[in-house]
Amino acid sequence: MTANAERAASMEKIVALCKRRGFVFPGSDIYGGLANTWDYGPLGIELKNNIKQLWWKTFVHRRRDIVGLDAGILMHPRVWEASGHVVNFNDPLVDCKTCKARFRADHLIEERLGKEAAGLTPDQMSEIIRTENPACPKCGNRTLTDARQFNMMFKTTIGPVSETGVDVYLRPETAQAMFVQFKNIMATARVKLPFGVAQIGKSFRNEITPGNFIFRDIEFEQMEIEYFVRPERAAEAFDAWLDAMKAWVGALGLQDAHVRVREHEQAELSHYSDRTLDFEYFFPGPMGWKELYGLANRTDFDLRQHQEFSGEDLSWFDQESGTRFLPYVIEPTFGVDRTILVVLLDAYDEEATVDVNGKADTRIVLRFDPKVAPYKAAILPLMKKPELTEIAKGIYDRIQTETDLLVDYDETGNIGKRYRRQDEIGTPFCFTVDPDSLDDGSVTVRDRDTTEQDRIAIDDVVSWLSSRVR
Amino acid sequence: MTANAERAASMEKIVALCKRRGFVFPGSDIYGGLANTWDYGPLGIELKNNIKQLWWKTFVHRRRDIVGLDAGILMHPRVWEASGHVVNFNDPLVDCKTCKARFRADHLIEERLGKEAAGLTPDQMSEIIRTENPACPKCGNRTLTDARQFNMMFKTTIGPVSETGVDVYLRPETAQAMFVQFKNIMATARVKLPFGVAQIGKSFRNEITPGNFIFRDIEFEQMEIEYFVRPERAAEAFDAWLDAMKAWVGALGLQDAHVRVREHEQAELSHYSDRTLDFEYFFPGPMGWKELYGLANRTDFDLRQHQEFSGEDLSWFDQESGTRFLPYVIEPTFGVDRTILVVLLDAYDEEATVDVNGKADTRIVLRFDPKVAPYKAAILPLMKKPELTEIAKGIYDRIQTETDLLVDYDETGNIGKRYRRQDEIGTPFCFTVDPDSLDDGSVTVRDRDTTEQDRIAIDDVVSWLSSRVR
Repeated sequence: MTANAERAASMEKIVALCKRRGFVFPGSDIYGGLANTWDYGPLGIELKNNIKQLWWKTFVHRRRDIVGLDAGILMHPRVWEASGHVVNFNDPLVDCKTCKARFRADHLIEERLGKEAAGLTPDQMSEIIRTENPACPKCGNRTLTDARQFNMMFKTTIGPVSETGVDVYLRPETAQAMFVQFKNIMATARVKLPFGVAQIGKSFRNEITPGNFIFRDIEFEQMEIEYFVRPERAAEAFDAWLDAMKAWVGALGLQDAHVRVREHEQAELSHYSDRTLDFEYFFPGPMGWKELYGLANRTDFDLRQHQEFSGEDLSWFDQESGTRFLPYVIEPTFGVDRTILVVLLDAYDEEATVDVNGKADTRIVLRFDPKVAPYKAAILPLMKKPELTEIAKGIYDRIQTETDLLVDYDETGNIGKRYRRQDEIGTPFCFTVDPDSLDDGSVTVRDRDTTEQDRIAIDDVVSWLSSRVR
Repeated sequence: MTANAERAASMEKIVALCKRRGFVFPGSDIYGGLANTWDYGPLGIELKNNIKQLWWKTFVHRRRDIVGLDAGILMHPRVWEASGHVVNFNDPLVDCKTCKARFRADHLIEERLGKEAAGLTPDQMSEIIRTENPACPKCGNRTLTDARQFNMMFKTTIGPVSETGVDVYLRPETAQAMFVQFKNIMATARVKLPFGVAQIGKSFRNEITPGNFIFRDIEFEQMEIEYFVRPERAAEAFDAWLDAMKAWVGALGLQDAHVRVREHEQAELSHYSDRTLDFEYFFPGPMGWKELYGLANRTDFDLRQHQEFSGEDLSWFDQESGTRFLPYVIEPTFGVDRTILVVLLDAYDEEATVDVNGKADTRIVLRFDPKVAPYKAAILPLMKKPELTEIAKGIYDRIQTETDLLVDYDETGNIGKRYRRQDEIGTPFCFTVDPDSLDDGSVTVRDRDTTEQDRIAIDDVVSWLSSRVR
């Protein structure tokens, strides 16, 4: 485990870099922001798309046992009765009577009173708060209310007015759609057990966010798979998914020391789960180890609930044995925004160096795996002279036309500054066209991580880059 | 213009095919559906991703003057005051006092009374309804109310209870985020006028939908560009975007006769627009010509409004002249779901043929452009024999490993049925491994559109397919 004291990355540095370079901006920024929402800027959306497309390719395209789905954010309200969200998806909250601030009761008990809050009922939490009477974390007065349960689903109304409209929720997870469409997929997608359904999409949770950048947003994006198996094969499928998730973490290029797997204890398990694991990431600063991904054996809880609430038969007919049963479900779940955050934190590095004038300086580098880097390369004419820019633009155009690789082009400012900019946005390679290129038909290629430079023939640039980025 | 009587496609056939083959399912289907919502199934999401990625490549990656953005669906409520949506984004609705059904007043006046309703105020519409006293389209009673304005934005509340929470809207368009983040992008993305910001994402409109499948949904996805230009260059940029949009329509492979461009008349223009064009598509059946895409010169209306409402300076500083000004905005806007619908309608074809037993039969084909087809090819062993399936799986694996092309694999059922299935889901090519393959190292390649068959060497399959799909 890397001690945080040794890490170059901090949440503050990442937030600043993300705004400075156009990865992530505060949402509704010119209006003073909105409830810890964040928008992905020009580089952030490329990073995000690369991660989502890599995930889709890994888990849908490269596997013959998984198909995709893209369901609505608005679903029938009965879905959330069947799933248990209407009754169980609550946060226990307390208010300060003095300053009107609002807090999670369990967090208050854990962080202010140092007591374990997992598994406590609101009444038990209220009892502790009354007995211990902690100070309000905001104003310091000892005037906190009892804990009350608040449902975390956002509600809205379909139809023009609330009296005649239908109250619906913004989905708090993408998972339920895979159960609700299970029957249609079973009927149309030529699937056989075991098979999975994958979805990437937005979910919404009306919760108090602790403000850890994009770690927890009220609006966030999930990548989820519901993998349907025979009940007697569920344990084995769970283990296979644990391996598949480890391989994904490896493909992202995260450092081993920053990721661990934690098994949920019996008391911690959700009502629907037989076994749950968290992938945890070691965040810098006070956050430390926090959940990154989850893997759960949801048994047949969801299909059974939806079968009961919808009245539709959701059982699987096994042609070999001639029997019907409800499959078990193994659920690997990945947060998109959280993946982006840890990829940024893990890639961030600082190097003591000297600037062009020989002064002590710090080189900031995002050591992205080339697969996820927004730009795979930058094409830089050494000077803004027509004979050099023409060659540089020609290389740029060839890469854009002959490959799917996104590359940057930059002809302004001194070359050292341009290299630093590309380092800071994580571009793995820079191709520099200089006056020698006119004679030898070659360009300088600079490696982001080592800063080492080499010459390669202009004609080889496309194949050289393609082979290094695949 | 193709007369609809000659077209094989109808909305009913497309809806049925989409459900049967897993392109599009009714949303929340097992719960009886929800307000004309639709979910994309395993093939639908591939078609959708292909269209979105082609659009992003065309307008963001292949152009150096456009950058991407991915903003929240939830934005600060002041955004929608500045944009005019709080005041102006209304539908005039009438209720039937007898059966409680609700209708768009303007549609009722146009479709039931055959009168022009564009530009009428609710009072003027009410006057017409009182005078003409039309029958309720649902129950037939002449008991319709006056027209009343209802805002079409979905409202929800951030925070646990409505008394203390903040009322926010689900965005009704992606466009506003590009104006709200204009300042951050200007500051970070090394852009120069003219430049554009592109976004793909969900929007929501709480409106009565006429039930034309995915033509108009309460939840839908948009692909929008806001292109910022010097005011004096706006007309010229508008013309260039008209050409770019025509090229996009061509790239999708839509038939020329099914698309036309219609210029908005002065009276029809939105309050913010100097000039607007609609790309219209000729839908089969009673729909006929309906809006597909839009192109508008929004002037500096939006930046001016957000500057005023936010108090932030959103002007562009022109280094050459040393002056500041608000750029004009050209907005090309594309609906994702509508694109999917017209691609399906346009690709749909039926051919009179004979089945394997010599009986009269109809071959249903989706003549997708290979760029958007969910599967680029299917690999089919003629019989389910190990020596054939091994070769077939080897071809499948090579394509999956060496390219980004998604291919299908199918070893069940007779070959004729398997070809028909691939025709119906729009797979351009089928590679069939037969006993001869063991001797000659070749496979049969069948063309979806012509059904012609040819032999090619197994070693050439990857490069043959790659060259035809690019």
